[in-house]
Amino acid sequence: MTIMAFLFLFFSTLLFADTGEEVLLKQAKSIFGPLPQVMTSEKNPITPEKVKLGKILFYETRISVDGTVSCVRCHPIGLYAADGLRKSIGNNCKVNPRNAPTILNAAGQISAHWIGNRADVEDQARQSVIGPPSFGMLSYEAVEKKLREIKGYGELFRRAFPGETDPITVDNLAKAIGAFERTLVTPSRFDSFLRGDMAALNEQEKRGLKTYMEAGCIMCHFGPYLGGQTYQKSGIFETYWKYTKSEPIDEGRYVVTKNEADKYVFKVPIHRNVEKTPPYFHDGSIEKLEDAVWIMGKIQLGKDLNKTQVEEIVTFLRSLTGKIPEDVLTVPLLPSMD
Amino acid sequence: MTIMAFLFLFFSTLLFADTGEEVLLKQAKSIFGPLPQVMTSEKNPITPEKVKLGKILFYETRISVDGTVSCVRCHPIGLYAADGLRKSIGNNCKVNPRNAPTILNAAGQISAHWIGNRADVEDQARQSVIGPPSFGMLSYEAVEKKLREIKGYGELFRRAFPGETDPITVDNLAKAIGAFERTLVTPSRFDSFLRGDMAALNEQEKRGLKTYMEAGCIMCHFGPYLGGQTYQKSGIFETYWKYTKSEPIDEGRYVVTKNEADKYVFKVPIHRNVEKTPPYFHDGSIEKLEDAVWIMGKIQLGKDLNKTQVEEIVTFLRSLTGKIPEDVLTVPLLPSMD
Repeated sequence: MTIMAFLFLFFSTLLFADTGEEVLLKQAKSIFGPLPQVMTSEKNPITPEKVKLGKILFYETRISVDGTVSCVRCHPIGLYAADGLRKSIGNNCKVNPRNAPTILNAAGQISAHWIGNRADVEDQARQSVIGPPSFGMLSYEAVEKKLREIKGYGELFRRAFPGETDPITVDNLAKAIGAFERTLVTPSRFDSFLRGDMAALNEQEKRGLKTYMEAGCIMCHFGPYLGGQTYQKSGIFETYWKYTKSEPIDEGRYVVTKNEADKYVFKVPIHRNVEKTPPYFHDGSIEKLEDAVWIMGKIQLGKDLNKTQVEEIVTFLRSLTGKIPEDVLTVPLLPSMD
Repeated sequence: MTIMAFLFLFFSTLLFADTGEEVLLKQAKSIFGPLPQVMTSEKNPITPEKVKLGKILFYETRISVDGTVSCVRCHPIGLYAADGLRKSIGNNCKVNPRNAPTILNAAGQISAHWIGNRADVEDQARQSVIGPPSFGMLSYEAVEKKLREIKGYGELFRRAFPGETDPITVDNLAKAIGAFERTLVTPSRFDSFLRGDMAALNEQEKRGLKTYMEAGCIMCHFGPYLGGQTYQKSGIFETYWKYTKSEPIDEGRYVVTKNEADKYVFKVPIHRNVEKTPPYFHDGSIEKLEDAVWIMGKIQLGKDLNKTQVEEIVTFLRSLTGKIPEDVLTVPLLPSMD
């Protein structure tokens, strides 16, 4: 037995020995931690006026090149802000390169998009309006022109960005949408558990949490969002394509960095609301959560998780389905053209 | 002077002489009448369970052929349930033949669609799911299969249609969506006025109402919805295309009846929320409400309405913007796949 193996066994015993619920809670607290109230940003302080405008802009189709695309197109709130498609379809039926991640709890992650080619939610909003497969506008100026043509936006932008002489800009659009998205936090029973309410999870869910930690899912899926904090190669023990038959092969973060080490590397997706946002993986190739869990075990952890383990993990994952804030569940009325 | 002309003048004087607000109210009451609470149907009684299911189905994209189309696609609530496009774009970027009318207050009309080729809102919902440019599904069976694949619908359909052994049918989908749409009534200040609150409209709006009646708009735009009760030829005094340059020429209700008399005949659109639902006319060819009013005067009434008259009418029309029910302004969470 090597020293490493010995240490592993020693700490495993220490960490995962079934010494009662208090230990489980202590472990979980050290690995996850409950969600924040909102996901703050020093660069973009959240104000009610920005959030109000951002929510309206989130539904605004009239600033897309074909008049059909708003943020809601790929992030419908009723589907937990993902669209249920393998890959989203934007303006003029253009297919997006990857599956649309939910924007619920997105602002707390290290970056936006699967390959981290958007710095944050503000950057994601900013680039989406001119993204060829999303809103498809040809320039920021063209977007700003469209915004100015909708008379009601003048007052809304002035209130959200007081003191600015010409507040209708894509930069401010991005800040407003970003501020709205920073409120999209969905606490679940798991957060109550992490705060000490042992009864918030039932026995099956606690067993699932234990299996989730023991199996090693937490190597990537840690923190309040259970993921979203690191990049990781998709396919460590076996190739990703062996089980998903994805076509074409996606080079992942390599597309951004051109660094060989980033080939097939993706941002680790979060597990908040995961049961509500199929299909799974960057290419949306897997429909069932059970299949996604088993494949991850095989290719990321080198483990052939048995049926019971998979079921236990899925049971825990379902406890991460959270409450969407009431405010977010109302539809904003969009400003009139004149 | 012919007898007809004499009678017209006589009754005009009687009806429209400026004999005070009470007369205006009396005239308006006889022509319009306030909106009902809901738009009932003997064939499809409204129940809370049907409305709940109908609202969920209204947002359901997963039953369309490309997974992107729900009722909301062409009827987003935030844009007063119209989409702001000349012609709606459905599955796989297919362009619909005509402008999408708002579904607010739609159930109170004689039929659905511009050419009346849908009997009622239930029929419209039923046919939309297999409509080639809308949801694009190939058969009702295919829609029902998709509905059954979404596990959560079982319970929702059973509750909405109690006692039925196999309630997941397109017929029931249509009834549920219809029941939801029958609640989409948007009373405005005009209804308060019609109920006797003289101060509900301001002086400009009352003058506009008078002009609206005197100019003859009410020949077609009568009843609680200010339209939607009759079919009418588009272009009586001059051809429609002279002012709108529409291409190609739409034969209207003739497409349904193959009756020569129905050429260029359309259902009279309603004026409820009209300021919120540009662009105008069956082909969405006109963007400004002022232009639409002036063109209607020219081609339907043979009148060259002056700027003041147009402005007065538009001022009145804006008073028809109503309140969307609170319940309708919340987003339903859609059932999970499993």
